[in-house]
Amino acid sequence: MHTIDPAEPLARVRASTPLVHNITNHVAMNTMANVLLALGASPAMVHAREEVTEFAGLANALTLNIGTLSPSWVDAMDDAARAATTAGRPWVLDPVAVGATALRREAGARLLALGPTAIRGNASEILALADQRGGGRGVDSTDATASAEQAAVTLARRSGAVVAVTGEVDLVTDGRRLARIAGGHALMPRVTTLGCALTGVVGAYLAGGEDPFTATVAALAGYAVAGQVAGEAAAGPGSFAVAFLDALHALDGPTLTARARLEITDAS
Amino acid sequence: MHTIDPAEPLARVRASTPLVHNITNHVAMNTMANVLLALGASPAMVHAREEVTEFAGLANALTLNIGTLSPSWVDAMDDAARAATTAGRPWVLDPVAVGATALRREAGARLLALGPTAIRGNASEILALADQRGGGRGVDSTDATASAEQAAVTLARRSGAVVAVTGEVDLVTDGRRLARIAGGHALMPRVTTLGCALTGVVGAYLAGGEDPFTATVAALAGYAVAGQVAGEAAAGPGSFAVAFLDALHALDGPTLTARARLEITDAS
Amino acid sequence: MHTIDPAEPLARVRASTPLVHNITNHVAMNTMANVLLALGASPAMVHAREEVTEFAGLANALTLNIGTLSPSWVDAMDDAARAATTAGRPWVLDPVAVGATALRREAGARLLALGPTAIRGNASEILALADQRGGGRGVDSTDATASAEQAAVTLARRSGAVVAVTGEVDLVTDGRRLARIAGGHALMPRVTTLGCALTGVVGAYLAGGEDPFTATVAALAGYAVAGQVAGEAAAGPGSFAVAFLDALHALDGPTLTARARLEITDAS
Repeated sequence: MHTIDPAEPLARVRASTPLVHNITNHVAMNTMANVLLALGASPAMVHAREEVTEFAGLANALTLNIGTLSPSWVDAMDDAARAATTAGRPWVLDPVAVGATALRREAGARLLALGPTAIRGNASEILALADQRGGGRGVDSTDATASAEQAAVTLARRSGAVVAVTGEVDLVTDGRRLARIAGGHALMPRVTTLGCALTGVVGAYLAGGEDPFTATVAALAGYAVAGQVAGEAAAGPGSFAVAFLDALHALDGPTLTARARLEITDAS
Repeated sequence: MHTIDPAEPLARVRASTPLVHNITNHVAMNTMANVLLALGASPAMVHAREEVTEFAGLANALTLNIGTLSPSWVDAMDDAARAATTAGRPWVLDPVAVGATALRREAGARLLALGPTAIRGNASEILALADQRGGGRGVDSTDATASAEQAAVTLARRSGAVVAVTGEVDLVTDGRRLARIAGGHALMPRVTTLGCALTGVVGAYLAGGEDPFTATVAALAGYAVAGQVAGEAAAGPGSFAVAFLDALHALDGPTLTARARLEITDAS
Repeated sequence: MHTIDPAEPLARVRASTPLVHNITNHVAMNTMANVLLALGASPAMVHAREEVTEFAGLANALTLNIGTLSPSWVDAMDDAARAATTAGRPWVLDPVAVGATALRREAGARLLALGPTAIRGNASEILALADQRGGGRGVDSTDATASAEQAAVTLARRSGAVVAVTGEVDLVTDGRRLARIAGGHALMPRVTTLGCALTGVVGAYLAGGEDPFTATVAALAGYAVAGQVAGEAAAGPGSFAVAFLDALHALDGPTLTARARLEITDAS
């Protein structure tokens, strides 16, 4: 029986203020920066091909998100992923709506082949990335996370990445272990780019250098508790977004340890 | 005498969760996504020429906004509008600051010629689009909506689009009917891109397949009531933006029917 | 002994509603627009090379920010700066993370050579711009403002620009005078792009046509008081951001005069 206490990885993020380099979509940039600052990390959004290699070498972690992609941005993501790998830095892939169009399927496959440390998506996205097939209508999942469990395990084993499937119950697997994380709040999917921002949070935790599975589980557990706390104060998606940043900023170790609802088993 | 009850179109949006494809400006993307999620629709921002044709065919409606345009984005908008038209999907044009520069006048004329289902702008923008002349200082209107009434009717007759002019009192016309919608709040123009986000809301309502005039009037009436409700709780533009998303999310049919202030006459 | 009352410049901004043209980074655009609207100015984000020259001639002030730069955007910034200078309009340079990469050092040097009216950055950025050397890890300063005082004075004398260094205590200098402005709140650096948005505010104040040193000091003093007021109501970075927009919108002359904490001396 494995157990993970998410309090220590959170303390490590705050003590080290990791610089997280994100090439993310236009919708998410502001939210992601605020989420990372509230957490205690230092976000930077840098996308020009002329500087991503240099910048990825300076940062403590990299995250790539194909939400509002264009071919030139995918080229920059490719360069950045290679630079992070060369520098021994972790990087995270967020395959937004990867099943929706040919351009997305190609971008997803190309970045996956570069060996991300972790992948975070919703169930439709993980199913599409694992199968290299179309699926999902847009950026919102049309599948429950449980339906992507086997695909996530297979994808983790094939790619070597930790795979996180987020939804009502989150799943994390490294192909050997499987974590289920409950919590969050029904309003979370009604606030745009909280999933994209979580990808940045995974990057911040991975920068701490611990086992990527532990780091990813701790990142999702902290996020879920902050979502629960925010939900208690929120009257709708507007006030939820505000309360969520406050809750993430105020999150302390004892609250996190007490409220985290996670279960770890062997992956089958 | 025509009447429209905005409650039923709102219920239809929520029951169908339309996927709304938006090629909008960088300032508006996050706000628009949050507004559409609060309403109950599913937003997607996709702008690369390599995928807009494919994506516009998947979506239930399309909206195009020239706020932070560049020539390559206008090409993608053109492709997307053609794809939506071919697929029989409604699309909305938001001619931000169309009178300000030659690039905007050309983009506005080019997209107008592709036959939008609806057009939404402020008075200065509708005057400029109707006359193909310069006008307006920037993105904020320097004209009252009433001054654009005749231009809106003419533009609707000439283009076949429903034309919405938003401001202190909103106007909607299909060249035959004219609706005046009161409500909203004085703080609305102090929050950026609420007008742009409304264009997305019009798209979500048009996806329901009812008469475009009715759909547009219902969209604006719902927005105006949410603005009124939010204004009652707000201390300034920051808290207004939060309360507005909460109000849009909480909006129910009876409140909407009771509070909507709209009047429909024949267009002269 | 010099003194500046920040109330009068604020009143001038509100009376004239200056149109501020911003070519800024993707993260900051929405925040900056909301800050300028809350203040009482009219923001416009326009970046296409095909229209920046025309638009910069229409606007009352221009601001340039290299946060998420790409070579084509730097070309557009160059064109816009030249157009503003030709039209006799003030413009502000925000050299985000200028020391981090070669692309940023080149962009910073190129725009600096065009003669900005004012420059606003954090201590790491001003040190890097003054020395044309690398420094700073990312967008967050790793230096206290006091450490950049001599660099700011030197940069002001060499460039002819007013230089503002923002941080826990802000500094403003024209090479002859030096203002120190206290206030603000510890949560301000935990909300993304409030510094970038302040650059827009400096642009709005410069549009009033008074002495650029006075305008810049007044802009920063007003911002610091709004930050203090917001901090009294905030529970974390989410609620701070909301309260800050409300405070900026509600800021009145007597409160500003009473609470501003600024000291002006001769620069050494």
